This record gives sequence, structure tokens and C-alpha cells, in this order.
Amino acid sequence: MKAEIISIGTELLLGQVDNSNAAYLSRELASLGIEVYHHVTVGDNPDRLIEAVKQAEERVDLVIMSGGLGPTEDDITKKTMAEYLKVDLILHEETEDKIITYHKNSDFEMPENNQLQALILADSLALTNDTGLAVGMMLSKGGHHYVLLPGPPDELEPMVKNYLNEELVKHTLNEQVLISRVLRFFGLTEAQLAKRISSIIQSQSNPTIAIYANEGEITIRITAKADDEDKGNKEIDKIEEEIMSHLSDYFYGYGDKRLADVIKDMLLERDLTITAAESLTGGAFLSMLTSDLSAGSIIEGGLVTYSADKKNNVLKVTKETIEKYGVVSPECAIEMAEKSRKLFGADIGVGLTGVAGPSSLENQIPGTVWIGIAFKDKQSFSKHYHFGFKRNKNRMLAVLNAMELVRRVLLELPTENTVFYGEDKH
Amino acid sequence: MKAEIISIGTELLLGQVDNSNAAYLSRELASLGIEVYHHVTVGDNPDRLIEAVKQAEERVDLVIMSGGLGPTEDDITKKTMAEYLKVDLILHEETEDKIITYHKNSDFEMPENNQLQALILADSLALTNDTGLAVGMMLSKGGHHYVLLPGPPDELEPMVKNYLNEELVKHTLNEQVLISRVLRFFGLTEAQLAKRISSIIQSQSNPTIAIYANEGEITIRITAKADDEDKGNKEIDKIEEEIMSHLSDYFYGYGDKRLADVIKDMLLERDLTITAAESLTGGAFLSMLTSDLSAGSIIEGGLVTYSADKKNNVLKVTKETIEKYGVVSPECAIEMAEKSRKLFGADIGVGLTGVAGPSSLENQIPGTVWIGIAFKDKQSFSKHYHFGFKRNKNRMLAVLNAMELVRRVLLELPTENTVFYGEDKH
Repeated sequence: MKAEIISIGTELLLGQVDNSNAAYLSRELASLGIEVYHHVTVGDNPDRLIEAVKQAEERVDLVIMSGGLGPTEDDITKKTMAEYLKVDLILHEETEDKIITYHKNSDFEMPENNQLQALILADSLALTNDTGLAVGMMLSKGGHHYVLLPGPPDELEPMVKNYLNEELVKHTLNEQVLISRVLRFFGLTEAQLAKRISSIIQSQSNPTIAIYANEGEITIRITAKADDEDKGNKEIDKIEEEIMSHLSDYFYGYGDKRLADVIKDMLLERDLTITAAESLTGGAFLSMLTSDLSAGSIIEGGLVTYSADKKNNVLKVTKETIEKYGVVSPECAIEMAEKSRKLFGADIGVGLTGVAGPSSLENQIPGTVWIGIAFKDKQSFSKHYHFGFKRNKNRMLAVLNAMELVRRVLLELPTENTVFYGEDKH
Repeated sequence: MKAEIISIGTELLLGQVDNSNAAYLSRELASLGIEVYHHVTVGDNPDRLIEAVKQAEERVDLVIMSGGLGPTEDDITKKTMAEYLKVDLILHEETEDKIITYHKNSDFEMPENNQLQALILADSLALTNDTGLAVGMMLSKGGHHYVLLPGPPDELEPMVKNYLNEELVKHTLNEQVLISRVLRFFGLTEAQLAKRISSIIQSQSNPTIAIYANEGEITIRITAKADDEDKGNKEIDKIEEEIMSHLSDYFYGYGDKRLADVIKDMLLERDLTITAAESLTGGAFLSMLTSDLSAGSIIEGGLVTYSADKKNNVLKVTKETIEKYGVVSPECAIEMAEKSRKLFGADIGVGLTGVAGPSSLENQIPGTVWIGIAFKDKQSFSKHYHFGFKRNKNRMLAVLNAMELVRRVLLELPTENTVFYGEDKH
């Protein structure tokens, strides 16, 4: 099956919002084996929408539209498509009830035109909106499938994931099932990862593999079409084993959990607490650890000691260490870890010190980082990194590599091969 | 003049990257008064690129292409356009020199095909790439203008800003000039801001105004076409005055500087230092303040005290305060501010405490926040906020409102009307 994505909204043509829906839909369609050759964006204009739909009909079976389902005058998608396809708009009662209930429970008065959001094309299948009011829909007519989705990504994405994909699978798979598995990696760049498994990438057909990079972490999604779940999983197991034979050193988990989530889970499970003394990262490591609800059980607090003076005065790193070795040193990183652990009574202390850039510090070039770890009665140690990027990327990589170091220590994995980033040549 | 934006790249159709270039180009074109009615995305496929270009030629004068200028086989844009427009590809010597010099100064060997990036369409105007190797170009032929830009946003954006806009101005303005000014606001939502100046928005023609929201901050860009700079600025002054009559309470600055940058500049200028004790924000306030190079002069460190116990043990907030008033209280926020100021010997101490959510704390609902300020020998105070959003947005708004509170204290502005966010109804 082939699909075309038509995004509708004058705000897109004015550049007021990025079109993240087209990318999201493309990823989902690719994982279903549905090919996409064109994205098209038009404004809130019926003529140009119809022109785009006509053109798509010539090229593909599946026309997916996003945007223009809201209650205001410039939300033209349903009215335009009803006229173009010569079908009525009818009331979807479930959505109407939802809209009425919503307004009863809020301080907002229900506007007259709000019920527009409950209208669907006659004979279409309604797609539930779990996070908003505008209902989506899918209509098959004259050899084409038409899908209408809401514009806001936080409404479109759950609708696709929870309802549309299932419908599309019915039309594409002929009794087959589609199984996906996500593997997560840290410690190499997307290009380095792709190079290591290039033979697997080149020979893929079913299962397919897709690589995505996101803020220092990389995921590989393996997707298999199979006669049943069991067969699909076996196909995926085989490819996973092949991938892991090249990349197991960098693997840290499955599914949606990011590196920080994996650490938090491990700490929770083992009933351990953590703290940190941060210099170059200035609070970013602690902030990431406290970003979800589990924080209260694993972290009681931590310190930012940006200046040498406060490393000594507040954290109690000795003057001797600072004068003899400097603040960008393994000795200082270890002492920051140990002293923060003591001050906050935690099981694990992490010390982060280095040169974020763009200037040098203590004659050390930007990107030089030492991370220290103090874990209960184990031998404290520190590890050297060099990230040759700009200030904020150096800071981000220091935070993530500290997470990775904690993970390796907890799992008693070797801690040598966690450094990898070369210089950014651009 | 009308334009169409064609984005080229199979990675876009697979959804591996968001198409931020189309949005960026649209904003720039809108500010030049050039209308855009279509965005089209195609893969690295010559036939589909030519089909898209032909269609664009029927609709517009200016065809802007991005992507496919790199050195690899799937970079097809120049070759395809050269064949389609029947012009030669010739060597751009300046770019060739740059590529050679670049490889001399790096550890990378120059690949054979790297010089492909130095080829341009004959008779085209070269557009310098300040941040990468692939040269851009603009060619006028047969009544159309064709622009070829590199795909990476960090190369495309400077090329547009520094070189392309100037060329386009020549073709669109007939001796006129185009002047822009950006006003920055904090403390209300985009919808609230738009409502307050809706009459101005509706009556705009020249100057035009464009509103953008970005992580809690909102900008208005005013753009005027005029016979000369002086006249343009006078037009802008007039609209600015009108806008400010509705929004001056929320205005904090001009240009590119975000709220945190404005605070940092003020602290630097006045030779003041700042610190913080963070509870619900867990280090995010300190992390934002240390995110650029000026950090060393304005901040020596700070504390994250997530648990009540560490607020007392480490920060020395009294047990009495915690037991009598609770940790989510004006008294605790003030004491956190004062004690952190003392511990780090800073001029300003900021205390952030509250309920990030999703659970309640001390019977206070998520989104409840107290921010305390201790500033030298002035009376310390704390301010109450309620953000009815999800955990991470509540944390982000607490950080930004703390920045705004510091700004108001430094400028001796009233601190009442800094709270504003209503409940998130979704």
C-alpha cells in the first residue's frame, strides 16, 4: 500500500509551527510497510485542499490528512471533504456526549459551534481522540482510503497509535500481524552505529529495522510481519541477536525508557539513593533525576559547586586537592563524589567536573570532563572523557555519560568502553 | 511574489527527521512579504523532484529547494536541476579552496567526491555556506527563480539569513527596505496575548506582526517595508507603542535574548551574584543559569534539597518552620532563599518549593508553587503561583517565573502581576 500525507493549516505555511505530524505519520506508516513518496502542506483553503487530494488519489491508495478538525471557521477539512466526496456530515453521539461532559466539568462555557467537532463523514469509522475533543475518522470510498486526523500532535499521536494503526494493519496485512521491538543504545553516534550494522541494514526486508537518534541516545526499531505473534517474535529474536553481536557493549534497554529512566528503575528496585556534586553541568544531572515522580525515593538532594571556592567551603573538597591537582582532575571528581555522598547521606555520590567551553580552564581544552563515582564501601574512582562539541552539547553528554557510568557500576559492567565521542568537525 | 518550498530527502519521508526547514523558510519569506501556498516533500528521486518543480513553476515565481547538496550518491538536487534546466555544472573555486583547506586542517582525509559540493549551476549566484561545505545557489531562468539550499538546518538558516534574504529583497522590494524588530513577553499565554491585541492583528498590513510562542516566552516580530530605514523604524515605533499600550506589563526585552539571558546580563552589569535552593525544580533553575559562559561571574553554586530532611540538615531551614508551616509554604520558600544566600555568600538567594505533581503534597494540589527571594538587606518575600499543568511544565514554569521575579526585583517593578497561567483544560 502507498500513502500520501497532506497537512492542512495556514499556520504551517507561515512557519508558526513545525510540521512534526508528517514525520510522525511517516515513521508509523514505514513500520507498517506502507510507502510514502510525498508530503504536501496546504493552508486552510478548500480549493487547494481538493487539488492536493485529487493529486494524491492519482498516486496512492491511502490519503492521510491532518489538521482542520477543530471548532473554528478556518477548520475546513470535514466540510470540504464531505462536499468533495459527496457524503453527509452526521453527528457522532459519543463525541457529542464527551464534549457536553467536558464543558460541564470545566469553567468554560460551551460555544455554539463546539459540536462541529462531533461531526463525522457518513459511513466513516470514528477514531477516538483520547487527549482532545475533535474526533478523527477513516472512510473507504471509490478505491481509496481517506483518513482525517486532528492537527495538534498531542491529539494526533495517541489517535494513530491507539486506533488508526490497528485499522491500517487490517487493510495491509491480510491476516498477518505486525510486531515491533525497540532496542536502545548509548555510547556511539548514529553514524558509528549504522556503520557497525551496515550489512544488516542493507539486507533487511522483513523484519525491517529503523534507526533513530535522540539527544545522545539511539534506538533501533525492529518490525516484523508474520503469520502470528510467535513467528513474528522469532524473526525479531534472530535479527536482534545479529544486531547485538555488533552492538551489545552499547545496549542498555528495550522499549520507551530512556537512559535516566533505566537508572531510576534500578535504584528504586535496589532501594538505593543517589546524590551529585555538579560543576560544569550546573544542576542538569540532578534536574534529570528529579524529572519524574520516582525522584522522592531515590534522591534527597545535591549540590551545584561551580566555583573552586564553593567546592571547598560548602562541599568541603580540601584546599590541597584543588591546589595540587586543580578542579578539572580525577582527584577532584572523586572527592566531589565522596563529599556529596557524605553530605547528603546517599548510597551513591557522583562528582561532575570539567570544561564546558568555549574557553579553556586550567589549561585543559573544552570538552574535557572527569566523572567521579563513590558507591558505599566500594573503591571510589573517576573516569576521563573528552567531548569535542559546543558548550551545551558537552554538558548534555557529561550528564548522560554520568548516568551510563552509574548503570555500569550498578551492573558491575566494565567501565572502560563508555567514552566514544570524537570531535565534532563542523 | 509567490514561492513554493520543496524539501528533498528520503529521510524526511521516512520520518527520521522533522522538516524544520519548511517552517523556517516560511517565516523568513512571510517577513519579506512573499506568499507561500504549498510545501512539498519528495525523496532523493530525480523524477519526483522534477515533477514537483514543474508543478511549482505553474503556481509560483520562486521555487526554493532544500536538501541534496552533499557529496554522496543520493544527493541528487544539483545534477537533476542541471539536466532539467539544461545548464552546466561548473566549479565554484572559492568553495573548492574552502574544502581543501578544511581537510588540511582536520584529521579526515578528503574523499574523492567531496568536490561535488563545490559545483554550482552555470550563471547562478553562489550562496556562501558559513557553517558547512556545500555551497548554495540562486538561478533566474525563464521567468522563474530557483534557489538550492543545503538540508542541515544549521547550514540552511545562516545561508538564508546572511545571503539569500538580501537577494530576495532585491527582487521583491523595488528600492524599498525591510526592517524588523522583535519584542519579547512573558507572563501570559499566546492565546491571551493574541486576544489583547486582536484589533491590531486584524488591521495589520504594513507593518506586519507575527506572534511566536516558545517554551513559556512569546515574541512579536514587527516587520515594515519602507522607502528608507528611518521611515521603516518610525512605522515600527508606532505599532510598537500600540502593542505596548496593551502588553507593557508583560514586556521584558528586544531581540534574541531569552528571559534567562536578560537576567544574566542584569546581574553581570550590576556585579551581583545569585544562588538558589531548589526543591520541586530539582536543579533546573541553576542549570539554566549556568548554561552559558557568563555563569562564572554571577553564580558560584547552589543546592538541590528535595527532601524535608535535607532542607533542614544541609540547608539549615529550621525544623520549626518545616513542622509548623510545611515545606510547601511561603515561610519555607523564604527561609530556603535566605539560607542558600548565606551558605553560598551570594547577593541574591532564590528558594523554589512546591508540588510538581502528579501527586499532591501536604494536601496541596499539583502546580502549587512558592518562590522566595532574599536580596541583600532588602525585606525577603515569597510569592504564590498555581500552574495547573503536568509535572514537567509545572517545573519549567516555576523556573521561568523565578527568573521573572528576579528581573522584577532588580528593576524594582511591582511583583503582583507575574502569575497568570490558568488551568490546562486538556
